[in-house]
Amino acid sequence: MAVATQSLQELCINSIRFLAIDAVEKAKSGHPGLPMGAAPMAFVLWDRFMRFNPKNPQWFNRDRFVLSAGHGCMLQYALLYLTGYDSVGLDDIKQFRQWGARTPGHPENFETPGVEVTTGPLGQGIANAVGLAMAEAHLAARFNKPDAAIVDHYTYAILGDGCNMEGVSGEACSLAGHLGLGKLIALYDDNHISIDGSTDISFTEDVAKRFEAYGWHVIHVENGNTDLDSIEKAIAEAKSVTDKPSFIKVTTTIGYGSPNKANTAGVHGAALGGEEIEATRKNLGWNHDPFEVPEDALAHFRKAVDRGAEAEQAWNASLDTYRSKYPEEAATFERMLKGELPQGWDADLPSFTPEDKGIATRKHSEATLNALAPNLPELVGGSADLTHSNLTELKCSGSFQKGTYENRNLRFGVREHGMGSICNGIALHNSGLIPYCATFLVFADYMRAAIRLSALSEAGVIYVMTHDSIALGEDGPTHQPVETIASLRAIPNLVVIRPADGNETSGAYKVAVQNRKRPTLIAFTRQNVPNLAASTADKVAKGAYIAADCEGTPEMLLIGTGSEVSLCLEAAEKLTAEGKKVRVISMPSWELFEEQDDAYRESVLPKAVTKRLVVEAATRFGWERYIGAEGDMVSVDTFGASAPGGTVMEKFGFTVDNVLAKAKAVLR
Amino acid sequence: MAVATQSLQELCINSIRFLAIDAVEKAKSGHPGLPMGAAPMAFVLWDRFMRFNPKNPQWFNRDRFVLSAGHGCMLQYALLYLTGYDSVGLDDIKQFRQWGARTPGHPENFETPGVEVTTGPLGQGIANAVGLAMAEAHLAARFNKPDAAIVDHYTYAILGDGCNMEGVSGEACSLAGHLGLGKLIALYDDNHISIDGSTDISFTEDVAKRFEAYGWHVIHVENGNTDLDSIEKAIAEAKSVTDKPSFIKVTTTIGYGSPNKANTAGVHGAALGGEEIEATRKNLGWNHDPFEVPEDALAHFRKAVDRGAEAEQAWNASLDTYRSKYPEEAATFERMLKGELPQGWDADLPSFTPEDKGIATRKHSEATLNALAPNLPELVGGSADLTHSNLTELKCSGSFQKGTYENRNLRFGVREHGMGSICNGIALHNSGLIPYCATFLVFADYMRAAIRLSALSEAGVIYVMTHDSIALGEDGPTHQPVETIASLRAIPNLVVIRPADGNETSGAYKVAVQNRKRPTLIAFTRQNVPNLAASTADKVAKGAYIAADCEGTPEMLLIGTGSEVSLCLEAAEKLTAEGKKVRVISMPSWELFEEQDDAYRESVLPKAVTKRLVVEAATRFGWERYIGAEGDMVSVDTFGASAPGGTVMEKFGFTVDNVLAKAKAVLR
Repeated sequence: MAVATQSLQELCINSIRFLAIDAVEKAKSGHPGLPMGAAPMAFVLWDRFMRFNPKNPQWFNRDRFVLSAGHGCMLQYALLYLTGYDSVGLDDIKQFRQWGARTPGHPENFETPGVEVTTGPLGQGIANAVGLAMAEAHLAARFNKPDAAIVDHYTYAILGDGCNMEGVSGEACSLAGHLGLGKLIALYDDNHISIDGSTDISFTEDVAKRFEAYGWHVIHVENGNTDLDSIEKAIAEAKSVTDKPSFIKVTTTIGYGSPNKANTAGVHGAALGGEEIEATRKNLGWNHDPFEVPEDALAHFRKAVDRGAEAEQAWNASLDTYRSKYPEEAATFERMLKGELPQGWDADLPSFTPEDKGIATRKHSEATLNALAPNLPELVGGSADLTHSNLTELKCSGSFQKGTYENRNLRFGVREHGMGSICNGIALHNSGLIPYCATFLVFADYMRAAIRLSALSEAGVIYVMTHDSIALGEDGPTHQPVETIASLRAIPNLVVIRPADGNETSGAYKVAVQNRKRPTLIAFTRQNVPNLAASTADKVAKGAYIAADCEGTPEMLLIGTGSEVSLCLEAAEKLTAEGKKVRVISMPSWELFEEQDDAYRESVLPKAVTKRLVVEAATRFGWERYIGAEGDMVSVDTFGASAPGGTVMEKFGFTVDNVLAKAKAVLR
Repeated sequence: MAVATQSLQELCINSIRFLAIDAVEKAKSGHPGLPMGAAPMAFVLWDRFMRFNPKNPQWFNRDRFVLSAGHGCMLQYALLYLTGYDSVGLDDIKQFRQWGARTPGHPENFETPGVEVTTGPLGQGIANAVGLAMAEAHLAARFNKPDAAIVDHYTYAILGDGCNMEGVSGEACSLAGHLGLGKLIALYDDNHISIDGSTDISFTEDVAKRFEAYGWHVIHVENGNTDLDSIEKAIAEAKSVTDKPSFIKVTTTIGYGSPNKANTAGVHGAALGGEEIEATRKNLGWNHDPFEVPEDALAHFRKAVDRGAEAEQAWNASLDTYRSKYPEEAATFERMLKGELPQGWDADLPSFTPEDKGIATRKHSEATLNALAPNLPELVGGSADLTHSNLTELKCSGSFQKGTYENRNLRFGVREHGMGSICNGIALHNSGLIPYCATFLVFADYMRAAIRLSALSEAGVIYVMTHDSIALGEDGPTHQPVETIASLRAIPNLVVIRPADGNETSGAYKVAVQNRKRPTLIAFTRQNVPNLAASTADKVAKGAYIAADCEGTPEMLLIGTGSEVSLCLEAAEKLTAEGKKVRVISMPSWELFEEQDDAYRESVLPKAVTKRLVVEAATRFGWERYIGAEGDMVSVDTFGASAPGGTVMEKFGFTVDNVLAKAKAVLR
């Protein structure tokens, strides 16, 4: 390395460091330690390897970058600014962590173009990266031709000690190793410091060996602070290993350059303070004002703009060739990139009449998934090792494995949290793929942190959750959701649907597939349910509808969801026979119902009818919204019990007799 | 081995297998595969190593056994029956998975004496085992003397492929390796089959190598089906390694003995069926009726009763000696075992007046924990690497580490799920230890599956959750709980408390410490809040109380929790000045309030006063219960935003002016 070059590199790296230092200092809030320590690896990666177009952050074939250690977001904002993204200007950096700024406290894909996924909750970012790499592998296997690799990018992630301690990263990385995702390259910022101090107090495992055990190619850069050559060689080596993901352990010093705070937890999550910043400037020979980037450094970084434009241009040319040679594939590919659904995607959604045999809605889900799959090639997904319980296999495709990435059935293993985070990555690959994933409803708890991030980061994941109540029976209270549905309805921007029968199942998937900017969670029964007379797929989109009605104004409303709607209908019949005027409402989705206009809502749930009985085999929690002051509910407000499902339902009061009795009590 | 002995062993092992086979067959539900494959290792462990007293399942110094692969519970029920526990008779086994039976579909400590922890949700059992082993290590370090080891038992666990895929097991086992828990011995039922088929489809990592990386001593038993000697040697070797936990990979055949279903997923979770049972009987040379245990086998197993009585007797004798030599320590130890709190445990709980400086409730929490700790030696706990944010360090003790197990500050690392499960293990060690654990409230999502199991399994864990609203500010929506509190209030048997000030913090801990059969989750602010005039510690136990009142019957109720109570008080003052009759209610805990009698509830929240305004910086979800038809709420029903906390609160309407405006709108 020539001295001049070295000096320019140093300028570039210190530009990152001081933008982070200055932004955190101005905000009096944030995490300077990681950007200061990881700046060298980030610089080498972004400058010498990463392919991206700052002027078109959504260019499809860009390399994906995930800052799994999201608290270090100033690293990413600095890089976005320096390399010429329009989304982050110097003013944005000066407004770090302020109201309305595009530089929030953790990277948020929905706020800042150039940020691929939302990170901060530790461990999930690297799992998102596994999802991004799976999406790339899948699309490459589906669309590339021997003479045209239109899908061809790497996924890079920087993760820290915290990410590596979180179980979710282990889940996803074990799967990545199994799948041999050669284009996934993770850089581990091995700085030996977490918030509580040295990792010696709780984290002394051999991380590199663990990743070897997962089947990753592992490389160690011993001096990640100044040995740029070794970083460069490591990334080049990682790229050359095509049958395994690569894990580069880069040993660094947190807060590198700060004479008194480097290598301490003090630099992790707090501003350095004026005095220490001065000392750091002196120590690193930095003679620039706050937020000032030396011209040479900026000019060097900004070469990324031309480089990116050229890369995209070249790709566009190869896409042109592809289009002419493979028009059919190209049409599908480009349609997917636009996020458009294919014509007739919902043509084969099944519909049912009451004469059709009643089966479990999980079986309807299976049929519906398989009715969609041939028409909707972007649908990919699977289960956390409950394929034959969740019934999520796509018969038209095989198993997504090393060597068969073109297949659409993903095998997640017993790794719910990893599964959810991987699906967020697939959705946020923004290539039109529609990921679904499945487990028992109660195990939503294992992946709740990922479901929340689907909702927050606008990832249109479909959650297929079966065994949705105490009616699952013998597995008992550990497996029986009671409070789970309420806890999910509480999450903003998540659509929860609990279909009552086959038509509602079709409708639930219709909503879910169309929801590309928010996740949908569908809860299915283990047990059989009859098909309703009044249900249609389209009514689900309204959230609630009249499943049976009386003449004139009802005296009473019976409101049910899922498997309990038919119980309401049976009870209503008896009440009607006794001369009562009863309306039954099927309410598969609160969120969708609440989005309807006042007139529709009033037409279904008239405010004046205050005698109401809700029947749902779940907690009452939250239902007061619809029960009102004079209503009641047949609910489950304790944990369930182990016994055959029918027995459990009976013991908990889910019988026509009990519904009838409760309804009469309300009417009294 | 003599032939006779071998034959008796085979009888014993096959007794376990056929009890499992027959029980699952009768129930037409359950998981025979694991008991059939793991019977040999379980037999060797229970017969040759485990120390327990079937007639006193709660004998303190027993070895703990955790079936982390809880679906295989018939293995455990068979062992409990065969070794002579009164909790599981043959009738119970015949009633497997039936209503009211003590043999539910997964092991439940609160149903079946002899079952230590509730398992089934995979991966958590081994994490519970880490907690049990930590409890033992801690108590041994605290109470044992060179001449008296009154705390001296092993913790054994059997876990499967599913457990090993789950992230939570990795979190806990990494920590166990770090801590060098030499008396923790895990047997891995390595049968290569999970529900979806061969583990080849998703789980091909080198598990043994991963455990080596965690710092465990790893042993491989290649033939776990018939090579009992190797199993025995492995366990003996594991016991001889005292500075590391041991991981014994026991390669087995799932459903061993079934000619057509062994080594397939088909035998995992379904009855074998009459025909295959016959074939299995023939194959294993089993000529006994269903549920019939050969006398020799039963007699052999039942030797455990005398063995156990002797072991307990010997321990009682050593405890007598200990008591006479170390009366003070013995008094504490025996008090803890009885689950009694020490006299004066709450004597130093701080109290405050409005004149005391307003500080963050997380700081009150720190002061309260440290006021409790010296008086409450059983209080142990820590944070998931947020000690200095959660403020959970006990100043009177040091760090629980290898070699310093007597210390009470646990360092969990960034491992929330593992932390929760470990604390469940500590609580269910039933030795009087009171575990607490801490993270940011929003990350309750990472450990929700453990919190649920605390509630279900009656584990009195204290969850210390700080940064409890959007007011945490700059970290932004990934870190700001919005729906979190609602989602926790929805869990049965969990007490959620959101204290408003110092007195309520004292009261919250008072409730939590006394709740030894249910978990308590306390949500604390990051930001400062004033001390209220009306608050006292004791009022918290009532769940809600009048924080400020008017003369006569109020026109309106202002209901707040936590940091929003003071906002209600300020608004009420202005309303009062305008001649309105307003009552302010502080409502730290729904659950506790709902347990009060009607008269108390009516005295605080009169039904007739329907003009109500709730103020809580969280979702409205669930609050309709108290808002009623004519009320309203100042709530947060979208995700938050990154900005300084004060700004975020203002933008979301948490200002006196907005509360005032909303209150007036309700009064209109």
